[in-house]
Amino acid sequence: MKCEIIAVGSEMLTPYRQDTNSLYLTGKLNEIGVTVAFKTIVGDRRKDLVGAIQTALGRVDVLVLMGGLGPTEDDLTREATAEALSLKLRRDGAQLAALHARAATWRMPMPENNLKQADVIETAAILPNPNGSAPGQWLDATYNNYRKIVMLVPGPPNECRPMFDAECVSRLRAVLPQRHIAQRTLKAAMIPESQADKLLAPIYTTYTDVETTILAHAGDIQLTLLCSKTSKEAAEQRVEELAGRLEEALDDWLYSSEGESLEQIVLYYLGLRQATLAVAESCTGGMVAERITAVPGSSRSFLGGAVVYSDPLKTSFANVPPELIAKHGAVSTEVAAAMAEGIRRRTGATLGLGVTGIAGPTGGTDQKPVGLVYFAVSDAHKTDSYDRTFRGDRDRVRQWATQQALDLIRKKLM
Amino acid sequence: MKCEIIAVGSEMLTPYRQDTNSLYLTGKLNEIGVTVAFKTIVGDRRKDLVGAIQTALGRVDVLVLMGGLGPTEDDLTREATAEALSLKLRRDGAQLAALHARAATWRMPMPENNLKQADVIETAAILPNPNGSAPGQWLDATYNNYRKIVMLVPGPPNECRPMFDAECVSRLRAVLPQRHIAQRTLKAAMIPESQADKLLAPIYTTYTDVETTILAHAGDIQLTLLCSKTSKEAAEQRVEELAGRLEEALDDWLYSSEGESLEQIVLYYLGLRQATLAVAESCTGGMVAERITAVPGSSRSFLGGAVVYSDPLKTSFANVPPELIAKHGAVSTEVAAAMAEGIRRRTGATLGLGVTGIAGPTGGTDQKPVGLVYFAVSDAHKTDSYDRTFRGDRDRVRQWATQQALDLIRKKLM
Repeated sequence: MKCEIIAVGSEMLTPYRQDTNSLYLTGKLNEIGVTVAFKTIVGDRRKDLVGAIQTALGRVDVLVLMGGLGPTEDDLTREATAEALSLKLRRDGAQLAALHARAATWRMPMPENNLKQADVIETAAILPNPNGSAPGQWLDATYNNYRKIVMLVPGPPNECRPMFDAECVSRLRAVLPQRHIAQRTLKAAMIPESQADKLLAPIYTTYTDVETTILAHAGDIQLTLLCSKTSKEAAEQRVEELAGRLEEALDDWLYSSEGESLEQIVLYYLGLRQATLAVAESCTGGMVAERITAVPGSSRSFLGGAVVYSDPLKTSFANVPPELIAKHGAVSTEVAAAMAEGIRRRTGATLGLGVTGIAGPTGGTDQKPVGLVYFAVSDAHKTDSYDRTFRGDRDRVRQWATQQALDLIRKKLM
Repeated sequence: MKCEIIAVGSEMLTPYRQDTNSLYLTGKLNEIGVTVAFKTIVGDRRKDLVGAIQTALGRVDVLVLMGGLGPTEDDLTREATAEALSLKLRRDGAQLAALHARAATWRMPMPENNLKQADVIETAAILPNPNGSAPGQWLDATYNNYRKIVMLVPGPPNECRPMFDAECVSRLRAVLPQRHIAQRTLKAAMIPESQADKLLAPIYTTYTDVETTILAHAGDIQLTLLCSKTSKEAAEQRVEELAGRLEEALDDWLYSSEGESLEQIVLYYLGLRQATLAVAESCTGGMVAERITAVPGSSRSFLGGAVVYSDPLKTSFANVPPELIAKHGAVSTEVAAAMAEGIRRRTGATLGLGVTGIAGPTGGTDQKPVGLVYFAVSDAHKTDSYDRTFRGDRDRVRQWATQQALDLIRKKLM
């Protein structure tokens, strides 16, 4: 079944703002077997909006309209949808009372304009909105003699997403042909992109009934497998079978079979080994610590670390001897190793990480070009060092280096 | 003049990938007076694509098609555009030679499929692509008796954006009515959103000839002013006048009149005052350091810092007395102040920053709820402390806290 998502709002036609709700809704739609065939963004002009709705009704079976349900003159989704379907609006008594009650609790006079939030298309079911004043609407309608499902949901993510989950998914499921969906997400780190494709494509392309999506970003590869069948078992069996073959091929590049992030996996292993971690970062400037501490509960295994951006800080926070820096340079295997050992000793952590490199855009030389990064992971027994040269701008080099650092810790713990 | 951008590619109809090129192109189009009225995302199905192109040609004057120019069977933009406009494709000799030359340098046999990248719509001008193998195309065409400009550009950002800048902008300018555009971006930090609107709307709404866009994100507000006139002076005068009034209203919430980031401004002031900075972060976990070190050349003023996630690290890296933590708790004004002073003394920096708080989702109490964050900024003369309670999830609290921390440093330096 084909769906179109229309995001309504002139702000999403500026260079500054993007629709992100549609990614969330697409995930939910795919889970129940609905494919998104088109996404459209249209501004707050009634004529444009009516046209976009009619175009959508001409090419898909399910239409989700997001936004334009507020109280201002620019909020035209109700009016435009009614016009596109040649239906009328009615002012709903219960909604009107709810609006008045809301205004009363705020002790504010309600502008006349607000009342339009109680307008409902004549044949629509009302979708309650616990997080805002504008309700959603659900229409089982006819357009050019075809049955069309049309949903109107609010634009703000904290209103749109809960409403879609609570109201739209079950209603959609009830009108869809019975399909069962199985889904799995595999994740792998630091596998070269060309190698990933060569390795994986011969496997997943033979599973034509499983939709495999590959997403690569700065050393992280995510494979999502999705299969829709008339029986739950059949769908799951196909996904499991393909997942098993891909996992085998990915070998120890694979870090997650259930969609966890790399930092979650690192923290999981640290917990499992009852180990703690501390980091000394130079070129990544705190990005490793930031990713780890983004995970709730990370304080159980992550002690902290030092952003040793200047040479004296490498000495005072990570015990790197100044002579070592003078001899080998701040960006060197030796200094990375000393940082890892030093931060481990200083903090009493089980594992220490050191990262030092040249993020660019300047500071590179022939021997040590922009993008060169040294890593070291240290435990009580030994310190392992690595180096890698990453391509791209400062941001990209730092992202790749952070991913590599986390992956080295993972491998140390495996 | 109205424009539509169509992004072609099934991967952008998954929950995982978003079109970002269109934001960049929209900025460039707005600068030359072209408004984006619609954005459409369509998958790699020829029928869907032909339909989407015809819909666009029916509602706008300028159409940009991004993606689908590669060598695979899924790359159908050339074919679909020709079909939508009832034009033919021709195989271009020079392009064919270029493809063969490219393959020769790689010492690889060229698959037959690759040749379709030399296919050009019969009336199109070829747009060179220095960063990839598929050239772009420029069409000055007719559809239902109306003149339409159609551009085909590649999907990868590193091919799409340079080609648009080098080839499309000047060609578009030549066919557009002569307009001059003036633009300014103002940025303000930590102004309450409700206050921003109350303060600014009465000013900018009176300038109906200047398009003002406001974007708010985690304590950061960006105002973009854009004015299009027949004379450059007239456009600039209106933008300058409005910018001046908004700057006055924003007072010291304003941190940038030229679009710089808050971390760039902090580094600018540090340079100006010949001052250095070191940070001790707990709940922000390295995010302050990460934002500062994202700016090239930040090592001139930023010495580094410590991510003192555990209590012992607060002592060993930021000299916070254990008794102080025992008495007031790790999340307290006293500890924030001690962290700021301690990190400044330990590193010899001119300024020290301390941040400690409860990012959540757990760890809050009645006295100290999730979202409560203490800040301190210390110099040789004194240490100023602040506290704020932010709403939202862990990520949001950390983002707001980071923004607040940077803004406190800015204000200290102003």
